[in-house]
Amino acid sequence: MPDTITRLREERERLNEKVLQAKNLGINRFFALDERVYEAGALDTRTKELLGLVASAVLRCDDCLGYHLTRCVEEGVGDEEILEALNVSLVVGGSIVIPHLRRAVDWLDELRVEEKANRV
Amino acid sequence: MPDTITRLREERERLNEKVLQAKNLGINRFFALDERVYEAGALDTRTKELLGLVASAVLRCDDCLGYHLTRCVEEGVGDEEILEALNVSLVVGGSIVIPHLRRAVDWLDELRVEEKANRV
Amino acid sequence: MPDTITRLREERERLNEKVLQAKNLGINRFFALDERVYEAGALDTRTKELLGLVASAVLRCDDCLGYHLTRCVEEGVGDEEILEALNVSLVVGGSIVIPHLRRAVDWLDELRVEEKANRV
Amino acid sequence: MPDTITRLREERERLNEKVLQAKNLGINRFFALDERVYEAGALDTRTKELLGLVASAVLRCDDCLGYHLTRCVEEGVGDEEILEALNVSLVVGGSIVIPHLRRAVDWLDELRVEEKANRV
Amino acid sequence: MPDTITRLREERERLNEKVLQAKNLGINRFFALDERVYEAGALDTRTKELLGLVASAVLRCDDCLGYHLTRCVEEGVGDEEILEALNVSLVVGGSIVIPHLRRAVDWLDELRVEEKANRV
Amino acid sequence: MPDTITRLREERERLNEKVLQAKNLGINRFFALDERVYEAGALDTRTKELLGLVASAVLRCDDCLGYHLTRCVEEGVGDEEILEALNVSLVVGGSIVIPHLRRAVDWLDELRVEEKANRV
Repeated sequence: MPDTITRLREERERLNEKVLQAKNLGINRFFALDERVYEAGALDTRTKELLGLVASAVLRCDDCLGYHLTRCVEEGVGDEEILEALNVSLVVGGSIVIPHLRRAVDWLDELRVEEKANRV
Repeated sequence: MPDTITRLREERERLNEKVLQAKNLGINRFFALDERVYEAGALDTRTKELLGLVASAVLRCDDCLGYHLTRCVEEGVGDEEILEALNVSLVVGGSIVIPHLRRAVDWLDELRVEEKANRV
Repeated sequence: MPDTITRLREERERLNEKVLQAKNLGINRFFALDERVYEAGALDTRTKELLGLVASAVLRCDDCLGYHLTRCVEEGVGDEEILEALNVSLVVGGSIVIPHLRRAVDWLDELRVEEKANRV
Repeated sequence: MPDTITRLREERERLNEKVLQAKNLGINRFFALDERVYEAGALDTRTKELLGLVASAVLRCDDCLGYHLTRCVEEGVGDEEILEALNVSLVVGGSIVIPHLRRAVDWLDELRVEEKANRV
Repeated sequence: MPDTITRLREERERLNEKVLQAKNLGINRFFALDERVYEAGALDTRTKELLGLVASAVLRCDDCLGYHLTRCVEEGVGDEEILEALNVSLVVGGSIVIPHLRRAVDWLDELRVEEKANRV
Repeated sequence: MPDTITRLREERERLNEKVLQAKNLGINRFFALDERVYEAGALDTRTKELLGLVASAVLRCDDCLGYHLTRCVEEGVGDEEILEALNVSLVVGGSIVIPHLRRAVDWLDELRVEEKANRV
């Protein structure tokens, strides 16, 4: 069964902690670089998260896709915008992207339900 | 635990429905193009499904591999032919293809059992 | 010797013509879909071209990278924005992206020279 | 400038000779395996060469694409069949395959001219 | 939920048996070649297993990564050495490698616990 | 015509300079991380360069392959060791790696000639 966004997130947090504890300086520096690259600069965070989403989709990485999808939702990117970014990924990457696109659409639903629940 | 063909199929149908409901015109057009490309033309459907199988194997996409394997069986492609197509995938794509080849061989068994049950 | 943007463009035009003349309906339909996906919708063309740029960079396709870089410049995307998009590509895709990043920086220079010449 | 089929072929022969002379047993065994996999078995050579063509296209390897295209022509595969196989590659692999598809169409022309010249 | 090393190993053994039973000569020859390539020669087995680990990580194959990690531990490669090899993979392959790196760090823990238990 | 090692090296130096001049902080930090990862630690530089070589080969990047091949030769790695590392790459990555393997063998010749000339 495919992972839910909730499970991906928990697994990500549990294992990121483990990687940090392994204390390899090079790896930890890379993680720092990876965080900084999505911070607002000449491009705003929304655009950068969409770039991360498309890169994750065409490289077909579910964990990365789930993460950037979550970040897009947090940054207020709308469903239409997300679907258009996924459509670019589909055309560039081909039908091999479809299984990931399918899961992304499912996770987006989960994230919108969560969003609504948090608003109350 | 690895997904069975049955589970892959159910998940595929459930999520394809969701993608269609999302109503992004570009995505839906791509899905139409993706269906049409395997229809008989100068090449027959059997050959085209074998092409889809090899493309899925070398690009290492389990969902796609499971789908084209199912279609090959539906089109009457024999085990020897499927194994030879998987062997081409293995030589072109390398040992990194092996985990997918292993699952394909397992799914082929599942599909043949299903085929027999349906014949009765 | 690496191709210049000018040479990539000429080759692209010469061969696109040939592909169209081959008159395979499926291929020509894909080409149409590929053009439409970058048109403004919920996301504007600038953003979509940046998405195309990042997808091309992480998938390491020089021809595609050169094309979307040209389109970004035509759409008025600035150097800082382009470099930040390339930085996202570099972090997501790794050092294997560097040779393409290097050529992109070189082509960007060529495109700015061309831009200046056209303004006069 | 893109390589012509003639140049790809000469370079391939010159360097294959060098690799064999390097006398690494494992590498030479792999080369033997690579030759045998396209020999007729349950699938005929034509089909296997089309499988090799599609695998090369979706993995975006120009040298491999040029080689299997040549072999397809030698085995009497027609233009329509080749274009349909390339269309499958395009749909599975996405627009990132287009630059390779363009060169394949150009090389196919070169191969047909050569074929005609040889017939006289 | 991510697979444990134990589950990956059991699945690998069960399915390798199935592949062998399928009796495709070409596939079985490839499996033999795949075993021999990690045997000591000019490079020792430890180094070759580290090469296999990095190749698996940058190509993002969990099954292969879990296998070569197990082999590295069996050959007495230390944690620092493994982390440095994973760091090379991370820099070359980019952040897209992170989900696999995370699982590798988790599996390494599992392998060390197993190692300790076996020593008693 | 394929690039010689000499031409790859000159192009690399010319364009690395341009990238640094572009002064994107994130990109320059990545370049620093990329240099440091091959420095001796728990693994020596020779082993790390072999890891870089295999990663470059399976990801099929000629520029990266040419660079790590040069570094291996500078670190005194012998031909047999390099060929065994390339053989691992070939088995893991498949026949799609062959065109790059061919060029690597050609470049190795060029590097050995250069090495001899420098010794005089």
